[in-house]
Amino acid sequence: MTTVAAYAAPAAKAPLERTAIERRPVGEFDVLIDIKYAGICHSDIHQAREGWGEAIFPMVPGHEIAGVVAEVGPGVTRYAVGDRVGVGCFVDSCRECEYCRKGEEQYCAKGAVNTYNDLDGNGEPTYGGYSRAVVVDENYVLRIPDALPLDAAAPLLCAGITTYSPLKRWQAGPGKSVAVVGMGGLGHMGVKIAHALGAEVTVLSQSLRKEEDGLRLGAGHYYATADPATFEKLAGSFDLILSTVSAPLNLDAYLSLLKPDGALVNVGAPEEPVSINLFSVIGGRKTLAGSMIGGIAETQEMLDFCAEHGFGAEIELIRADEINTAYERVLASDVRYRFVIDASSI
Amino acid sequence: MTTVAAYAAPAAKAPLERTAIERRPVGEFDVLIDIKYAGICHSDIHQAREGWGEAIFPMVPGHEIAGVVAEVGPGVTRYAVGDRVGVGCFVDSCRECEYCRKGEEQYCAKGAVNTYNDLDGNGEPTYGGYSRAVVVDENYVLRIPDALPLDAAAPLLCAGITTYSPLKRWQAGPGKSVAVVGMGGLGHMGVKIAHALGAEVTVLSQSLRKEEDGLRLGAGHYYATADPATFEKLAGSFDLILSTVSAPLNLDAYLSLLKPDGALVNVGAPEEPVSINLFSVIGGRKTLAGSMIGGIAETQEMLDFCAEHGFGAEIELIRADEINTAYERVLASDVRYRFVIDASSI
Repeated sequence: MTTVAAYAAPAAKAPLERTAIERRPVGEFDVLIDIKYAGICHSDIHQAREGWGEAIFPMVPGHEIAGVVAEVGPGVTRYAVGDRVGVGCFVDSCRECEYCRKGEEQYCAKGAVNTYNDLDGNGEPTYGGYSRAVVVDENYVLRIPDALPLDAAAPLLCAGITTYSPLKRWQAGPGKSVAVVGMGGLGHMGVKIAHALGAEVTVLSQSLRKEEDGLRLGAGHYYATADPATFEKLAGSFDLILSTVSAPLNLDAYLSLLKPDGALVNVGAPEEPVSINLFSVIGGRKTLAGSMIGGIAETQEMLDFCAEHGFGAEIELIRADEINTAYERVLASDVRYRFVIDASSI
Repeated sequence: MTTVAAYAAPAAKAPLERTAIERRPVGEFDVLIDIKYAGICHSDIHQAREGWGEAIFPMVPGHEIAGVVAEVGPGVTRYAVGDRVGVGCFVDSCRECEYCRKGEEQYCAKGAVNTYNDLDGNGEPTYGGYSRAVVVDENYVLRIPDALPLDAAAPLLCAGITTYSPLKRWQAGPGKSVAVVGMGGLGHMGVKIAHALGAEVTVLSQSLRKEEDGLRLGAGHYYATADPATFEKLAGSFDLILSTVSAPLNLDAYLSLLKPDGALVNVGAPEEPVSINLFSVIGGRKTLAGSMIGGIAETQEMLDFCAEHGFGAEIELIRADEINTAYERVLASDVRYRFVIDASSI
């Protein structure tokens, strides 16, 4: 066991504070990663505050991890000391079910082991990236291409794959008109990736406050959803709408913006149920769908894609003692566009 | 103009009564059809009672029409006098938009002209199949294969295509587990078609009252949704659920019955909005979708498919003076499985 410094929430809704946690010994197929950077995801806050149901405390959040391999187990073949690597939302899965076999470990029939706020195969709690080091089986480790700075790469491990996977699945690309709802941590990655895939991108954001950024990151159009005229003007316009917001959406209004056969795909989700008139999907054979992160192979594909197109996330680098302030700023949508913790400050 | 006998609702919620309507002269590309049978669709009742919004009265419902060609215009090439033909939910469309060009006339950008309760290109009201004859442009007429009796074929023009189209689109077939919700006019066709497509079919009905019929029509399994154990037992079981009911569904409960990447497709719809927790689609990348009838080409494909597999709808043949009673029985789910009006009694 190795003792490492970490930032943890000691209980639901309590501020995070510096502490020490134990990491397991490096096993045969394990990689010990010196964490360099960890992104702050909105879901860290949901879980640290038990917004998504009962959680495990103390909790070390963080599933957007970028670092360097410091040690490998004797059976490890894919990574060597010094490699630049990342870890995303899960660190293990059953490896035997239909979904694990086809590389969709996020839908593991037995449940993937989340990077934090979960129990591993031995019943031990998992701790996330707000720490100095982590031990992970090599099959759940990603390679970060040299073209990507580690700090801007960290948020790709959740925000990147969460938007890349549905954009690919619902065929964002040349000739397709794609709207991204929300211009936050997920949304700004959605804009970059949809643009890089060749789609015509429109941002639908509450206000025009971030319009300049949106256009710079690849959007061709930017509309304020607070203005009812937006919904009249854009009726029947989009092949795909990717909603990244966790505020309750007026689903019928957004579905009306789709062409026939269009899809509204949610990657952000409100905690409360929302209402839908089923005629909104019947009339134009439309789809309301959801998507959750992506498998290991697709996450690697996304990292390579971002490196090839020369972009990571837009980040604000912070010290670990700024985490609690950063949480408040995330809740106030006051971040452009992802906080990343410099792990050397933990 | 030709005067023909018909049954019409003189006003919203008023009983239907015998009357006379005018049919337009047979134009260059028109076909005059002697109507032999007309199915009673639940949507006839919704519209005759203005459940779906303001309607046009007097209303002659009926968009499940089977008959024989009695006269053709000089430009008609596809049909000849004596041909067995059908008419479905629409009788015209713009023929120029993206959707008309690709044979999805039901999504015509200018709006297809509905068979009744609509205005045609000249601003004249359209009247449906509860009558002795109808004049329709040949491009909106279907051929009924000889292997299908006209009375059992009539309901295919709506109930058949409404279920066939989404079953094909969402790939019901060998190796797929498909549930059909509701065992009524649409549902019983969904069972027959999904079975003929090679899928393993399960009926989810409120009670087990129609279990014997369901198994006879091709279902391998039959469960009562009134029993909460059904939802526990079938969790994560289906690739596709086709909901044919217009009662409000517990969407989250039905979505929980899908495998990852599964789809819940609605062809029936409640008049009121329903509630959904978006986590129900996010977790397993699931789809909630809708579908509305089908295009002319696909409707012909469906008729040929049913003929090849040797089935039409299960019907109860009635006289025209039984229409009002039949409406009440449809509302009470007391029909096995489609009322069809013998048009000679009009």
